Amino acid sequence: MAFGWIDEQARLRRRDGLVRTLRPRAADTALLDLASNDYLGLARHPEVVEGAARAARTWGGGATGSRLVTGSTELHAELEEELAEFCGFEAALVFSSGYAANLAAVTALAPHGSLIVSDAGNHASLIDGCRLARGSTQVAAHADPDAVGKALSGHDGPAIAVSDTVFSVDGDAAPLAALAAACREYGAGLVVDDAHGLGVLGRDGRGAPHAAGLAGADDVVATVTLSKSLGSQGGAVLGPARVIGHLVNAARTFIFDTGLAPAAAGAALAALRLLRREPERAARAGAVARELHSRLTALGLEAVRPDAAVVSVRAPSPEQAVQWAADCRAAGLSVGCFRPPSVPDGISRLRLTARADLSGAEIDRAVQVIGETRP
Amino acid sequence: MAFGWIDEQARLRRRDGLVRTLRPRAADTALLDLASNDYLGLARHPEVVEGAARAARTWGGGATGSRLVTGSTELHAELEEELAEFCGFEAALVFSSGYAANLAAVTALAPHGSLIVSDAGNHASLIDGCRLARGSTQVAAHADPDAVGKALSGHDGPAIAVSDTVFSVDGDAAPLAALAAACREYGAGLVVDDAHGLGVLGRDGRGAPHAAGLAGADDVVATVTLSKSLGSQGGAVLGPARVIGHLVNAARTFIFDTGLAPAAAGAALAALRLLRREPERAARAGAVARELHSRLTALGLEAVRPDAAVVSVRAPSPEQAVQWAADCRAAGLSVGCFRPPSVPDGISRLRLTARADLSGAEIDRAVQVIGETRP
Ligand SMILES: Cc1ncc(COP(=O)(O)O)c(C=O)c1O
Ligand SMILES: Cc1ncc(COP(=O)(O)O)c(C=O)c1O
Repeated sequence: MAFGWIDEQARLRRRDGLVRTLRPRAADTALLDLASNDYLGLARHPEVVEGAARAARTWGGGATGSRLVTGSTELHAELEEELAEFCGFEAALVFSSGYAANLAAVTALAPHGSLIVSDAGNHASLIDGCRLARGSTQVAAHADPDAVGKALSGHDGPAIAVSDTVFSVDGDAAPLAALAAACREYGAGLVVDDAHGLGVLGRDGRGAPHAAGLAGADDVVATVTLSKSLGSQGGAVLGPARVIGHLVNAARTFIFDTGLAPAAAGAALAALRLLRREPERAARAGAVARELHSRLTALGLEAVRPDAAVVSVRAPSPEQAVQWAADCRAAGLSVGCFRPPSVPDGISRLRLTARADLSGAEIDRAVQVIGETRP
Repeated sequence: MAFGWIDEQARLRRRDGLVRTLRPRAADTALLDLASNDYLGLARHPEVVEGAARAARTWGGGATGSRLVTGSTELHAELEEELAEFCGFEAALVFSSGYAANLAAVTALAPHGSLIVSDAGNHASLIDGCRLARGSTQVAAHADPDAVGKALSGHDGPAIAVSDTVFSVDGDAAPLAALAAACREYGAGLVVDDAHGLGVLGRDGRGAPHAAGLAGADDVVATVTLSKSLGSQGGAVLGPARVIGHLVNAARTFIFDTGLAPAAAGAALAALRLLRREPERAARAGAVARELHSRLTALGLEAVRPDAAVVSVRAPSPEQAVQWAADCRAAGLSVGCFRPPSVPDGISRLRLTARADLSGAEIDRAVQVIGETRP
């Protein structure tokens, strides 16, 4: 039968304890959330919600077409302008998702004959971008600017290095300044995915490229998502106007995709304005992460020192990671559980996310539950 | 300089009259819209808009994480259930875009060693799916079931044929029944993208697979977008529960992407319920398209007979297509203009979309303007 081969894969997943199932959540839950990427606690903020509702009323439920046909509204332009200005870049282009923004940036900036040097820990969307691009890809060791320089040194023609700014699984930061230096030595462009940096790193949450003094440079492009700190959906590419104009003309996930829904653009814009008004949210997210880390390691747990708002705690096995997360859940705490094949190194872990709006009592409770349920 | 090579590409585009620029629209415009994919005229329907606003209020501005972590809500599950039921499939899985749904369906159903037979006129997102998939791809002549059968006959192991149901540029329909027969002869699966069929074709708009008697078959998978007839954003894969379960576990654009924003899910669900209550909208969209076609060809214009709601009218050259669309616009009519590299065959055309809510007077006006501005 046509799709019969699927059953064998399903059997192997069951055998290995790797079956994933969906668990739809209710609108109101008593669970304490340390699993979402809502770092600033804005997804349900009244202003963000009203930003979504107002945009839907003004512009409709959808953008109705490609951004190049009917899908560009003044709202998209407004969001692009404010995002670019906030993050310190010349221009911005909004996409239907961060995933689509990453596919666009990598494919459009790596033409035939070019080289992409991609960090071994990069997000799936960057990896898919490398696979789709016409250029060839060399994978460099994780967070290793020397390896990037070495790969670039052997290439003649356009080249880019591609890296997450904050790696989504372990929450460690890339050595951006050293990466930029390696790129500049060889005239290569640097493309960084600031999905987990925007709203958390840099002055008032302007992001990792801004913190590293790279925002606005003519050889640096950043991508961001609107789905994490900004509590919405969508993504954007930030960079020199020349690059943005090129994406409009060359990026398939821009040209052949319906524009971001007005409600999502409206929610992200409201969140961005909130962040500008209440910049202390950014620093608070990082401080909560560091507190979680120090208290969990004080309990003897093995966790990666967080550079942003993600705290990764090792689990002994996939099965025990799943059990640990389930036990947390039973005790009222929602945590992420990452295991193969969603991790680059085969190591299973709990993935905790700090939120700017977690109270001291909530942090106490989270630490207590994680400690008491440890395998 | 790192991105200096972009300037040469920009120069060539200028020389060839192929530069694309964004033109953000205002919320209220006097333009008559024959360019959007809002086939049923639902994007700004009060119930759809309220569906978006209510969902944002209930669930927040964003889904806050991957569907596998915090991003699945009861609203997503509800939408999946009603979509599957309406289109006649066992199960459905909602994605952040139709683009992402297509990448998921093709990559997850074409493992290493498998064959994909892909129609030469397929949408960019299906083509990107083929490029990302581990299986190998053979491109078959457009709408040619014999060519598909021939390609499948030479392969041993899992195989799928992939086709749009309604091709986005010319609006012609795929020969679905014959494609399914060719697939069945060789035990292959059939994956069809019903982006432009849902809401327009089939009984009460249930889509092209339903019309062809293929909905719910154990060897057929359909993808749809929520961004066209349903006036929102997002996409879905419809198919046997076994296939949907496989996607949850294997599709990278599902696992590594933030869930669809609640507002988009809410708008799509409201639109779907509206369509069930007012099924005459589906037939009306097709009737408007056929009327546009017959009146434009009566004026001596060359247009493809529409199988759904897209009417494609030939233009002599890219420059004249752009001028024609601009002249229509100046006369108060918004039409799509497709030209290289967004067309598979190098032929430029105006792309008109019929909407169920176009009045007789609006159709008159559209035909008159297009005729008067012809090159
Ligand atoms: C590092 C990184 N980049 C990109 C994405 C994709 O962004 P989005 O979910 O907004 O599509 C994610 C997560 O979803 C991510 O963690
Ligand atoms: C045939 C077809 N498939 C898929 C898509 C992508 O869907 P979406 O825009 O919802 O991402 C489109 C258009 O955008 C399309 O025309």
